[in-house]
Amino acid sequence: MAGSGMQLALERQPHSCRSWRFNVDVNNLHGWSVVPHKCEDDVEDYMTSSAYHEDVSEALDEALTYARTFMYSADYNASIRYAWIFAVDETSLSNVHYYKNHKYGAEAFNDTLFNKWVELAKAPALEATLDLFDSLKDWGYCLFFLSGRNESQRSATIKNLVKVGYTDYEALILRQTDDIGVNATFYKSSKRKSLEDLGYTIVGNVGDQWSDFTGDSTGNRVFKLPNPMYYTG
Amino acid sequence: MAGSGMQLALERQPHSCRSWRFNVDVNNLHGWSVVPHKCEDDVEDYMTSSAYHEDVSEALDEALTYARTFMYSADYNASIRYAWIFAVDETSLSNVHYYKNHKYGAEAFNDTLFNKWVELAKAPALEATLDLFDSLKDWGYCLFFLSGRNESQRSATIKNLVKVGYTDYEALILRQTDDIGVNATFYKSSKRKSLEDLGYTIVGNVGDQWSDFTGDSTGNRVFKLPNPMYYTG
Repeated sequence: MAGSGMQLALERQPHSCRSWRFNVDVNNLHGWSVVPHKCEDDVEDYMTSSAYHEDVSEALDEALTYARTFMYSADYNASIRYAWIFAVDETSLSNVHYYKNHKYGAEAFNDTLFNKWVELAKAPALEATLDLFDSLKDWGYCLFFLSGRNESQRSATIKNLVKVGYTDYEALILRQTDDIGVNATFYKSSKRKSLEDLGYTIVGNVGDQWSDFTGDSTGNRVFKLPNPMYYTG
Repeated sequence: MAGSGMQLALERQPHSCRSWRFNVDVNNLHGWSVVPHKCEDDVEDYMTSSAYHEDVSEALDEALTYARTFMYSADYNASIRYAWIFAVDETSLSNVHYYKNHKYGAEAFNDTLFNKWVELAKAPALEATLDLFDSLKDWGYCLFFLSGRNESQRSATIKNLVKVGYTDYEALILRQTDDIGVNATFYKSSKRKSLEDLGYTIVGNVGDQWSDFTGDSTGNRVFKLPNPMYYTG
């Protein structure tokens, strides 16, 4: 008991849950494994509010504006295959329904239970992401999903993506056996680099984790969506 | 009049001022020159609230924890000169008093007036930054200020820094004649690179603009403070 008390004392409590979320948003806080207990309600309120959807829409309106501006810029060359990268969880698909039953991230992540949820293939789309995706497709961009999910989850992931409306993308990139255990920044960087090696130029990159953006070959512009429920490093 | 109406129509209005600030915080919005007119009150409320100071304190508590953890880590080598970098405006010194008279960033930046304010040398410290600075100094870190201010502002800047308590730093790095007009990311990267060339290892980097962090030689960890009043690219 004394030992566990000491451990609790070492865990710094945030000044406020709002300031904790600010510092998560801007990537000042690294490697946290669960939402602080006292912030469960704050994260629930945010993730189920219009504020969350406004933050996402504001980000993706900017992405849309950038995509359109790029096509009319001097840099644009019609013979180049221009790509946009999308993360899957909390970017293209929403797992809020799952996290609702798991304290909105204020309990330890359970691989087994989350994988069962993935197999159900019933996560809804983030509607603003789907709208951006459709516009980019209409404009001729090549669209890729780059996810931390494993190859074994391919059929469930495709089933889910297609069911909610994500169709006609170039590829869904998942962790292969060799990628398992590799940190997210390195894994995602190496896959984006491979896309560049295949001749794609990455114009935009949409994700909810800083590890989607902190490596190499990140693209001309990155668009960070909010996600105070979990951290992937 | 028709022309100016068209220009207004092209300026996308944010979904909400809160979502505009989120997207500024995470660097989704680039190159904005003034705070949207409708967000002046929101920015004023934030910059004069305890929320702003909580966000700063949360960031710098994490910086302090990191600095202390690093000193007890296997990477630490007592013979190496470890450096921390601090931006000046809105990181070490607060110009809120100036911006209060300039619509909290909702009016065009006026070089002449801001320079007059700098010459007064009466900006207060961000107290949480000064506290971090003092702790790092006690622990033997080498402390640098790296500012977008010009060399011509050296004496006013030193006078201000020292007056509010920033003493015994290694150097204040300012834009030289050759640096004027160079974008902030490139300018700051090249100065940090020079510090590395001189034998310093940059452990931490504290700033309020993403251009403090988006280049090279950024340091082991970066700590982003809020600043919804202006954008430096």
